[in-house]
Amino acid sequence: MMSLIVQKYGGTSVGSVERIEAVAQKIAASYKKGNQLVVAVSAMSGETNRLIGLANQIDEQASLRELDVLVSTGEQVTIALLCIALQKQGIDARSYTGGQVRILTDDAHGKARIKDIDSHRVESDLSAGRVVVIAGFQGMDEDGNITTLGRGGSDTTAVAMAAALGADECQIYTDVDGVYTTDPRVVHDARRLNKITFEEMLEMASQGSKILQIRSVEFAGKYNVPLRVLSSFKDGNGTLISLEDDDQMEKPLVSGIAFNKHEAKLTIRGIPDQPGVAYKVLGAISEANIEIDVIVQNVAKDNSATITFTVNESDLSQAERLLRNIAADLGALEVDADKHIGKVSIVGVGMRSHAGVAAKMFEALANDGINIQLITTSEIKITVVIEERYLELAVRALHSAFELGNTDVLKS
Amino acid sequence: MMSLIVQKYGGTSVGSVERIEAVAQKIAASYKKGNQLVVAVSAMSGETNRLIGLANQIDEQASLRELDVLVSTGEQVTIALLCIALQKQGIDARSYTGGQVRILTDDAHGKARIKDIDSHRVESDLSAGRVVVIAGFQGMDEDGNITTLGRGGSDTTAVAMAAALGADECQIYTDVDGVYTTDPRVVHDARRLNKITFEEMLEMASQGSKILQIRSVEFAGKYNVPLRVLSSFKDGNGTLISLEDDDQMEKPLVSGIAFNKHEAKLTIRGIPDQPGVAYKVLGAISEANIEIDVIVQNVAKDNSATITFTVNESDLSQAERLLRNIAADLGALEVDADKHIGKVSIVGVGMRSHAGVAAKMFEALANDGINIQLITTSEIKITVVIEERYLELAVRALHSAFELGNTDVLKS
Repeated sequence: MMSLIVQKYGGTSVGSVERIEAVAQKIAASYKKGNQLVVAVSAMSGETNRLIGLANQIDEQASLRELDVLVSTGEQVTIALLCIALQKQGIDARSYTGGQVRILTDDAHGKARIKDIDSHRVESDLSAGRVVVIAGFQGMDEDGNITTLGRGGSDTTAVAMAAALGADECQIYTDVDGVYTTDPRVVHDARRLNKITFEEMLEMASQGSKILQIRSVEFAGKYNVPLRVLSSFKDGNGTLISLEDDDQMEKPLVSGIAFNKHEAKLTIRGIPDQPGVAYKVLGAISEANIEIDVIVQNVAKDNSATITFTVNESDLSQAERLLRNIAADLGALEVDADKHIGKVSIVGVGMRSHAGVAAKMFEALANDGINIQLITTSEIKITVVIEERYLELAVRALHSAFELGNTDVLKS
Repeated sequence: MMSLIVQKYGGTSVGSVERIEAVAQKIAASYKKGNQLVVAVSAMSGETNRLIGLANQIDEQASLRELDVLVSTGEQVTIALLCIALQKQGIDARSYTGGQVRILTDDAHGKARIKDIDSHRVESDLSAGRVVVIAGFQGMDEDGNITTLGRGGSDTTAVAMAAALGADECQIYTDVDGVYTTDPRVVHDARRLNKITFEEMLEMASQGSKILQIRSVEFAGKYNVPLRVLSSFKDGNGTLISLEDDDQMEKPLVSGIAFNKHEAKLTIRGIPDQPGVAYKVLGAISEANIEIDVIVQNVAKDNSATITFTVNESDLSQAERLLRNIAADLGALEVDADKHIGKVSIVGVGMRSHAGVAAKMFEALANDGINIQLITTSEIKITVVIEERYLELAVRALHSAFELGNTDVLKS
């Protein structure tokens, strides 16, 4: 059956002329099966950094507008080379820059958001039997200025094109062959998942599984574009990310384990109880552009509040300084900082309908003598913060406890 | 007095980050004198060849459309870097690709011709006190496809912008400091001309003085845009190319000497007289895309015709083969080929109103024992073809005979 497929190839996948020719062969194979294809590509790996390096030699504070004009040439080179490679294989192909397509964005240079796509031109090329190759990562604002979507924005381009075209699937080719139950470098029997839901993928991605940009997963979920993560280096079906499949009776309780060792923990204790304490504490941290991850607040018997939160390790000293000022302002008792923590989460839509998942998690950790410092939960995720040195042990214990290495319970 | 000036900097002038910063200083100096400035730039030297090299690795017969998408990135990189360098000097600058300006062309990829320029956007930037930086060499066709104007097309971009804006002057910055009476490598006292007319420049350029693209000079002449050739490496007034100045009573007879040693001569003799002989002979040569330069035809006493013409040395063997076939078809007597010829021309609007210029030229050559094989004339040029080994001697003899090395007779 003919499908309309949007494919995306990242910088490593198109990192050399030889790699571009290999990508052209992959596209040709899919085209010859009768599929209609739109392909979004990144700049050849290293090219964006080379261009930014040239700009930095002149001025490290270069204007964002001109940086967008500069770096957008990276993808433009790739689309032309890929079309040339496709044409050599006898496939009629045509390239477009973001502005030509046209992908309309706001005017936030360097981190623009897509407002609209006029897919008319692409549709007419597809009808004519052409493969359409689009420069990822870029667009044009209402005044015709070149914009870029920010690093990793090529994924967003692909998903947005797929949504605009009503594509059957958006395939993200990358250097891994799918989404795994957890990092295979930590757990040797980690397994590739055949399927995962958008929600689970978001929880996995934001926990440090950096396969896909969070924005592109959100986008795909919002417009219900089935996303597939595949390897551009070897064959395979990859992992399909889609809406929850209601027909599937047997959902595994847990789909994967995410973890992150690059966070640090801050605690402020004995804050005199008053309305808006959380805002007063965390607002000032956010205003300094420090990203806050886990947040836990509790109130003691004396009604004084304790707030604990985590930030990136690299932001710890700045956050601690800010927090000590806030503590003085609020008359809080003390501030604690701890950079030796690790965060581990179990993720799965199945846990919605099952009691006992949390208990099973805590039991597995207790069996290995791992003390839990913080716990937070969402509908499809339970996160704990523990001592950093136990992190990998905890991941292995949980992977085993939820039988993730056992193919029998994998989603299929 | 405030002037509107269009400047053009070629690939060597913007060949490195350091050179781009030097160009920014030149622009800043002119801007600070109160001029309004539009700047067209080429790709950094070597970049266009690097990009074409990538394409050739995939397919040496790459589609012209995709080659245009590819090579147009070269100028796009330069415009961004130049704007960044200007902004660092505190000058508000804005870059535009050919398509953004917009420079509308026909759809002849790789050698497109400009049809129209919408200068509205540029004018509004100029009014706001901005320096406008435009990617040379490129435009966009009516369907929004990226086109290029062909090698050297950045000159054309600059002249066309100057014409569209009604600029006071179009300054072409290059690696020579102006137009000389002849090649200084051949004649040591060759002098830079302060002024030359469009017609003279065309005759000089087509004779091998490769400072400016012929198309851009034609364009400048047609729209009466004063052109100035200057060095981007050293200060100076360069050479102004403009309409003939009627106020100037004392015109030199001859402005310059052009020459070319890379031509070859073909002669077909004893063609039975019939209408359209020249077309039959030369039409077949042109159809093979061989460029014909000098053409001389004569009729002998027996009414048989002789046609002699010159082509580029590299086309000689193909042209000779074609000519032998034609000779057989027409029943001509013989075909001669000679690759050891040189062509030398004297050029000057002054010779229109002066008899005796040709005689003086032939006398100078005779004094050095140089035999003339062919003579052709136009209103402002006399060309002779001679034996190649006498070429440099002839150039020096003529330069001296017309006192071109003497500053007293220079246009000033």
